Amino acid sequence: MSETTTQNPEALIPQFQFERLLNQDSQGRRIILLGKIASQPALLTIERAAFSTSTAHLSTFVSSLTDVQNLGDNDIYRWYLARSNNSASLPHDLKVNLIYPCTPKHIAKYTPQPLRYVTETPSIYATHVRPWIEQQRAEGRLNWVFNILEGRTEQDDVLFCAWDGPEDERFLLLPDLNWDRKTMRSLHLLCLPARRDKWSVRDLGKADVPWLKDMLIRLRGAVASLYGTGGAKVVGEEVVQPDMLKFYLHYQPTYHHLHIHIVSTLLDAGTTQAVGKALDLQLVIAILEALPGDNASMADMDLSYAIGEGSDLWKAVWEPLLLQKSTSDAA
Amino acid sequence: MSETTTQNPEALIPQFQFERLLNQDSQGRRIILLGKIASQPALLTIERAAFSTSTAHLSTFVSSLTDVQNLGDNDIYRWYLARSNNSASLPHDLKVNLIYPCTPKHIAKYTPQPLRYVTETPSIYATHVRPWIEQQRAEGRLNWVFNILEGRTEQDDVLFCAWDGPEDERFLLLPDLNWDRKTMRSLHLLCLPARRDKWSVRDLGKADVPWLKDMLIRLRGAVASLYGTGGAKVVGEEVVQPDMLKFYLHYQPTYHHLHIHIVSTLLDAGTTQAVGKALDLQLVIAILEALPGDNASMADMDLSYAIGEGSDLWKAVWEPLLLQKSTSDAA
Repeated sequence: MSETTTQNPEALIPQFQFERLLNQDSQGRRIILLGKIASQPALLTIERAAFSTSTAHLSTFVSSLTDVQNLGDNDIYRWYLARSNNSASLPHDLKVNLIYPCTPKHIAKYTPQPLRYVTETPSIYATHVRPWIEQQRAEGRLNWVFNILEGRTEQDDVLFCAWDGPEDERFLLLPDLNWDRKTMRSLHLLCLPARRDKWSVRDLGKADVPWLKDMLIRLRGAVASLYGTGGAKVVGEEVVQPDMLKFYLHYQPTYHHLHIHIVSTLLDAGTTQAVGKALDLQLVIAILEALPGDNASMADMDLSYAIGEGSDLWKAVWEPLLLQKSTSDAA
Repeated sequence: MSETTTQNPEALIPQFQFERLLNQDSQGRRIILLGKIASQPALLTIERAAFSTSTAHLSTFVSSLTDVQNLGDNDIYRWYLARSNNSASLPHDLKVNLIYPCTPKHIAKYTPQPLRYVTETPSIYATHVRPWIEQQRAEGRLNWVFNILEGRTEQDDVLFCAWDGPEDERFLLLPDLNWDRKTMRSLHLLCLPARRDKWSVRDLGKADVPWLKDMLIRLRGAVASLYGTGGAKVVGEEVVQPDMLKFYLHYQPTYHHLHIHIVSTLLDAGTTQAVGKALDLQLVIAILEALPGDNASMADMDLSYAIGEGSDLWKAVWEPLLLQKSTSDAA
């Protein structure tokens, strides 16, 4: 072992001479620095640690915050920067959100809830889930989507509008709410087709393959013209290349008007892209192509997904179904 | 608007009276506290902020760290806790890793690399990818897997051993390297089947459906007996219920001996579960059931995935293929 590796490990850190930022995660809470210690190259990864969750610590933690700086507020919602320390020379190390006064609904929303993994068979879909979706749509839950599609709201957000062809081929491209609209590596867009007969992936059939493939090509083109080399909205030197995009659908989705998520391959993957929620659009196309019979569709397959016990679909469909099953199993 | 909502927002935070920890993400870098302000309920979310990445800040940041505490070291690798501040009364807020001296290979590994999204057709698989996998296997890259299966290494890690049936039905259950082996909400296990004829999801065919379904049932049972109510390895009050598990495969996997990832539905989803990497095992089973013909298999479908330009498969297969394509497109 060389001399450099046998030194007191604590003594090495203060000797680190910073050269450049090599990498960071897209949340920016882990940075990798390249530098030198005693003229030899060294890599230093610095990561924000977990909070202590001991009651003793937490009961005094909030009152110990310093330099609390309000960034904005809207009714009962407020957001801030703060410091866990008194080092005014350092940037703020905490983000804080306050909901006050909060309601029991807020508390229920943020309380951990069991997340079940269920398998929706074609028969459960047809008998229980589809009628439930129909009811959601009838209650006007999609009016905000139709308002966007009909040009009444959010027109400033529309990034690309494919509106010249037949109605069934029209679509809009919008930024996802979670995207900061400038960082290319965390690009996240949504494609909203204009047609209203596709409620979810369940409504995609073999006959839709040419439509889906064509939309994929046009979406890649739209993203390239916006964010590719020479694109309209490129910020700094970052660009998105057409083969650095992922396309996926959610099942179950938050709202039942078919929409396609488009993300950069470099975006840190979270729940939005995860097994049990996201279905790769190119995999869906490959499945539809492989299924036998001209009328084959995604309504004919078992689809499994994670579902929270607090969700409306759980309460309306899955809880009664499982209760019924356990009663009949016991009989 | 009530009086409580029109107060100076900054003045509200110091008034927060902590009652209990309501929720946290599985990394522990975001906590949600329930409490009261002036006798009314309030929810406070506190999150570690991103690091500043300005060169001015980074060039002094490392030397400003205090209370650096070494946790361990192995050759050129060392890990630490540290503080970004002088508040010795607070827990350490940073985790630090040092690789020193590091090599150009380390630097390449941590440098951001383009991540492409490719579609592997059945023909590209058969002609290029399968021969490459065969070569990887011939080079002895799976010896560590065979050592585990043959009981030569890591036997202390085996959580469950299904070894009584015919060889083709045997499997081992191990903890994933990224799991801390105690936090139930972030449970992550790996199932290693004993049979060596299944290199990846590509080798799964319609005839494997009964085997896969049987393995799913036995795996749920094994997890329940280990970590369910009354389980052998339950820590504290947390248990895992059989319908709170997700099962998935990677394509491309890191090593080409079929293995199944098993995670809690509550685990924060990252790249391991993401579109372009993970395939839901129950979806794979549903696809195999839906495919026509007794000999149908996952080798017959387009499979898309994200692949880094630094990876061996990219260099051996995709880069030459795409170069060839662009040459023939230009001709």
